[in-house]
Amino acid sequence: MPTRIAFLLMTLALHACAPQENAASNAAPAALPNIVVLFADDLGYGDLSSYGHPYIRTPELDFLAQHGQRWTDFYVAAPVCSPSRAALLTGRLPVRTGQYGQRIGVYFPDEPAGFPQEEVTLAEALKERGYVSGIFGKWHLGDAPHAWPTQHGFDEWLGVPYSNDMDWVGDPDFDTLRALSAGSADDIAARTQILATRPAKYANPLPEYFNTPLISSVAGGASQVEQPTDQATLTRRYTEAAIAFIEENADSPFFVYLPYTMPHTPLFRSTEFEGHSLFGRYGDVVEEIDWSVGEIRRALEELGVADNTLVVFTSDNGPWLTMYEEGGSAGLLRMGKGSTFEGGMRVPAYFYWPGRIQPGIVSEIGSTLDLFATAVGLAGLNNESGIDGYDLSQTLLDGALSPRTEMPYYRSGVLYAYRLGQWKLHYVLEGAYGQPPQRTTLTTPELYDLRRDPSEKFDVAAENPDIVAQIEAAVARHRAGLEILPPAFDVRLNSIQN
Amino acid sequence: MPTRIAFLLMTLALHACAPQENAASNAAPAALPNIVVLFADDLGYGDLSSYGHPYIRTPELDFLAQHGQRWTDFYVAAPVCSPSRAALLTGRLPVRTGQYGQRIGVYFPDEPAGFPQEEVTLAEALKERGYVSGIFGKWHLGDAPHAWPTQHGFDEWLGVPYSNDMDWVGDPDFDTLRALSAGSADDIAARTQILATRPAKYANPLPEYFNTPLISSVAGGASQVEQPTDQATLTRRYTEAAIAFIEENADSPFFVYLPYTMPHTPLFRSTEFEGHSLFGRYGDVVEEIDWSVGEIRRALEELGVADNTLVVFTSDNGPWLTMYEEGGSAGLLRMGKGSTFEGGMRVPAYFYWPGRIQPGIVSEIGSTLDLFATAVGLAGLNNESGIDGYDLSQTLLDGALSPRTEMPYYRSGVLYAYRLGQWKLHYVLEGAYGQPPQRTTLTTPELYDLRRDPSEKFDVAAENPDIVAQIEAAVARHRAGLEILPPAFDVRLNSIQN
Repeated sequence: MPTRIAFLLMTLALHACAPQENAASNAAPAALPNIVVLFADDLGYGDLSSYGHPYIRTPELDFLAQHGQRWTDFYVAAPVCSPSRAALLTGRLPVRTGQYGQRIGVYFPDEPAGFPQEEVTLAEALKERGYVSGIFGKWHLGDAPHAWPTQHGFDEWLGVPYSNDMDWVGDPDFDTLRALSAGSADDIAARTQILATRPAKYANPLPEYFNTPLISSVAGGASQVEQPTDQATLTRRYTEAAIAFIEENADSPFFVYLPYTMPHTPLFRSTEFEGHSLFGRYGDVVEEIDWSVGEIRRALEELGVADNTLVVFTSDNGPWLTMYEEGGSAGLLRMGKGSTFEGGMRVPAYFYWPGRIQPGIVSEIGSTLDLFATAVGLAGLNNESGIDGYDLSQTLLDGALSPRTEMPYYRSGVLYAYRLGQWKLHYVLEGAYGQPPQRTTLTTPELYDLRRDPSEKFDVAAENPDIVAQIEAAVARHRAGLEILPPAFDVRLNSIQN
Repeated sequence: MPTRIAFLLMTLALHACAPQENAASNAAPAALPNIVVLFADDLGYGDLSSYGHPYIRTPELDFLAQHGQRWTDFYVAAPVCSPSRAALLTGRLPVRTGQYGQRIGVYFPDEPAGFPQEEVTLAEALKERGYVSGIFGKWHLGDAPHAWPTQHGFDEWLGVPYSNDMDWVGDPDFDTLRALSAGSADDIAARTQILATRPAKYANPLPEYFNTPLISSVAGGASQVEQPTDQATLTRRYTEAAIAFIEENADSPFFVYLPYTMPHTPLFRSTEFEGHSLFGRYGDVVEEIDWSVGEIRRALEELGVADNTLVVFTSDNGPWLTMYEEGGSAGLLRMGKGSTFEGGMRVPAYFYWPGRIQPGIVSEIGSTLDLFATAVGLAGLNNESGIDGYDLSQTLLDGALSPRTEMPYYRSGVLYAYRLGQWKLHYVLEGAYGQPPQRTTLTTPELYDLRRDPSEKFDVAAENPDIVAQIEAAVARHRAGLEILPPAFDVRLNSIQN
């Protein structure tokens, strides 16, 4: 396999070029923990057995929950895909990096922009300690070659550049749908309506209907493109590539980032998983991801590196609620993808590190923003750039309280809501994709007690003016420490729309 | 303790009087399994750890789930208290026994009616095989002495006759609330509004505010009444009384029915559980119930009868959604208590019988209606009266498919909806207590695929006329086999209202 050979050569070269100041740490490389981040796409808070789904069975994730930590209050930094991913990889809010859009808020094919060269990814940061990094899955931070992950610290990439519904072949609705994707909530509702009236396609998505490319690339090396990719085998191929990478690098410290293409619509799963679940195609797809999690864990065990590897599993945002038969559930949480209600940004999260993690259910606040600080901390580095994150390692390893006690909820560059402790103040309400309410800027912010009312049903602002004041003070501090960049993408779409 | 002595004497007398035809079975009484039914009040589908609640920790119920069966599609026969209880105890639909109300649908204090003498309770049925039966908790099938459980097969009762919010001392809103309880959805909304505007009381319920009596009674013997009862110790006292009963009857086959008063509002828990949970008073109360489940299990183990005892844990209906800080969650299910959407009638359910139950998550259909048939079947009796139930023992013991493939959803004597396999057809829509939509008799029934859409969001009747026709045929068969009695209660309330 030429890619792997090229990669091996490059890995050797990298190690040979390790900076002098790391000589001391290189003396005991085994002590540097490996980091594996498994990242589902549009998987909802309620979509897994251990989060209460009635029909989807996820024994491998249940295993992580039983032997690791399952977090109940874990957040992404944006309710949509691209900014959420940028935040995970940088530990920085999308408004700080400019990695957000003005309208629907994700990268589309042929965007001229892409992930900025000046931002430091976790893969780049870990390089300083001799880590090798591989990404096996969806990037969605720009599809232009200059934006590829192999330009941003990853040594190897097998995956798709954007969402699997973004590039269709011969679709008569393509232009209409594309235009509506970038629009207002009304536009999104119209788009959803068009999609909903094409049940035959969604019931039986045809591989040739979607033109998503699969890119295989090594840093500074060759690349290959399969287009359209065979989506049915993506979960399996990502898993196998990640395991091959782990096998090849079992002696190095490694960072594996596995952003699944699934369960984002259109749903595909391999033959072995057809009819596997009680929950239709969506369940099959999630159960194949669960299988993948088990494969990764078993590979780490077989290679003898499980007890030196932190495995994280989470999702990039809430479920796409309007996608009947193609979308998931936020469980008891309100709304889903696209919304700053809890259903849009609170996601399942598991941490697994046998012998190291203090097992249990954790109801502290955490975020994908914190993975950068946590990983570089575990690697013995100072966290220089991931300044919107916290090092969660004491919570993971010792069961300490989380250093994160606040969480901002942004959508498209606007602070919609803010959590302080158990309380959440909403400034702007907006439903999930295609769901009421439409955007409402509140004249009086609404306050919810997330501990007692996780479904956000009871506004208790009037009874709690002191808490509202405390949150507003926290928000003022937050804003004071933040320079907001203009949105870096949606540019092409805005020019279409405006 | 005079009650226990009287009870022991009575038990001995009962055994001496065992009918001749049971002589053969009496030869091996140990083979008759004990039955323990633990029955929470207003506990929602989403209120327990293993059903996905983020903040309530229920390790004892998790234990039952891990070593027994946890069912995902288990139903009560009515979305409110009294008819649900009548159905559990008889294996008969409330419309068949008349144990339902015309309006709000539960027994209120001083109702002249009560559980009918001609109906056979599970306690009465099991007597034929020499079982002794105790009820420790809330009866709610009539508070007149002729209606007490000790008149209906139970040898011993410690508990309250009706809901713990029904009899208040010195409440200026009492008459208004009582009248509104019996009314339309608008009335219920008005009642809810009054309750919601009295947060001080609900935040700090005062024991002396509620005048609920605690009755201690033995069949054919003395009774004692404590009024008002100390609600804070009810869960503990029920548990202790049940364990004492089990200890006294460890050598008999026994049936223990433990219908908790909690977590029905007003919420009380013992001192040890104040602040026990992350979910406020409601969480504390549920965690005390979880403790109780563990105490019962440990008592069975210590007495050496655990492996001869089927333990069932479930709830009488969905959560009371409008009760902020006093109500629970239906998780991903739609609506709650009072509604024939899933949130009103689908409840948590665990079955535990070490060494006998096939452990796992079960997504077959089951119902509290089936507990009668299952218990008498396990006791080797023919099921003569519980004709709306199915014997689930093969599903429990062998993992077989459930014999129940259909479920009717009644509210106040009207068939609102009907489930056949994975499909549910709604004829009448009505929200949970105080929730929209108000009652709507549909001109075209709505069809939901509960397997793919457990939250009942997508009406797919138009696309599936054949399935609608199949369900309508099943409904016709169901109606043909059913004589509907007039409602036996709400009589006094109707006279107030009419």
